[in-house]
Amino acid sequence: LNRIKASGLKLRFCTNETQATREKFVKKLQGMGFDISVAEVTAPAPAACRILKEHSLRPQLLVHDDLVPEFAEIDKANPNCVVIGDAAENFTYANLNEAFRVLIGMEKPVLISLGRGRYYKETDGLKLDVGAYMKALEYACDVQAEVVGKPAKMFFESALAEMGVPPQQAIMIGDDIVNDVGGAQRCGMRALQVRTGKYRPCDENHPHVKPDAYVNNLAEAVDIILQQL
Amino acid sequence: LNRIKASGLKLRFCTNETQATREKFVKKLQGMGFDISVAEVTAPAPAACRILKEHSLRPQLLVHDDLVPEFAEIDKANPNCVVIGDAAENFTYANLNEAFRVLIGMEKPVLISLGRGRYYKETDGLKLDVGAYMKALEYACDVQAEVVGKPAKMFFESALAEMGVPPQQAIMIGDDIVNDVGGAQRCGMRALQVRTGKYRPCDENHPHVKPDAYVNNLAEAVDIILQQL
Repeated sequence: LNRIKASGLKLRFCTNETQATREKFVKKLQGMGFDISVAEVTAPAPAACRILKEHSLRPQLLVHDDLVPEFAEIDKANPNCVVIGDAAENFTYANLNEAFRVLIGMEKPVLISLGRGRYYKETDGLKLDVGAYMKALEYACDVQAEVVGKPAKMFFESALAEMGVPPQQAIMIGDDIVNDVGGAQRCGMRALQVRTGKYRPCDENHPHVKPDAYVNNLAEAVDIILQQL
Repeated sequence: LNRIKASGLKLRFCTNETQATREKFVKKLQGMGFDISVAEVTAPAPAACRILKEHSLRPQLLVHDDLVPEFAEIDKANPNCVVIGDAAENFTYANLNEAFRVLIGMEKPVLISLGRGRYYKETDGLKLDVGAYMKALEYACDVQAEVVGKPAKMFFESALAEMGVPPQQAIMIGDDIVNDVGGAQRCGMRALQVRTGKYRPCDENHPHVKPDAYVNNLAEAVDIILQQL
């Protein structure tokens, strides 16, 4: 990261993290030694807030407690839509029924989902992610969620707009073949897949998505990018 | 019901009830004055038990506490499939993750769902039904559930086999346009929709399902059937 910043290239961190505010997320990375600030992060919750404001939507939040501060400025009285994130322990039967009732009570239900992940791994095992609960509400209400976050095209477009860079001049580096590589490419960007983190060898035979190149790690991605300047 | 029984016609009660054993269900109806016995009821749980036995499947149960006795004779150690019903308060984050882990740990996940209802009404409001949670697990595990219960063809075929009657000689009476009428017709039976219970006037414009006739209530259905004998 330091080499990229020193080169003068513009940089943005795109995350689907919805279990914490950007502040918390950034603090965690700073603690690990990364030079990163809140202003450099594109995340689903602020993107959702922009949509809510634009369309005068008042959300019923079905999100993690730690994410609620991101919606501090949003009017939540008398809700006319549902925003669902990775609510984890907040995915209770009662909370899901409550979100469902808001949706089914509307003529045209509006469901905004902070990502569409299927599951993720924690120290105590695999957990269902927001996408699974999104599908439950979609089916019950016969509605399609608007997905904010990777791999949504609009999410990458926000990040590009924040940098003031056209997609042809941007490159995505990520470990997730669908959310990072596929999403960025559909937006007109090039994309590298790192062979770390979520990467699995079977990703290299993915039926729909093919990265512009593979790299063994972030350092190697930086080498390649800086060579081309 | 008494008039049908007196006529000598064979009779079967087909229910998607999965919040209680057949015993409890029958007692409730007997309490309301209906002449009905457990042996006359076709319900999803016993149908699932037959499938489990046939394929040597050991289920992880994600069902209502009151339904568990229906699975008393089934080996549930070291599960190699998941059976999901309308678990209501048992649809906790922990229980859903546990069911998910059983499925995702299998090479070919087997998910058996006791119905595919979207939601239902209780005195304290609308509740998400088994179908919504089925969709969540289907999406997370990239698998399609085997649905037991109405409107599954196999479910109606079981009821017909129990009576020893071919579909052409049977008639379904129900209030649910898709689960009762559509399911029975796809099985080769005729079907009447009663204009009571779940019936909604918009059912009469349903895009795919058209009952053989409408009746105002069960008594009128019996009148019509007995007239044709």
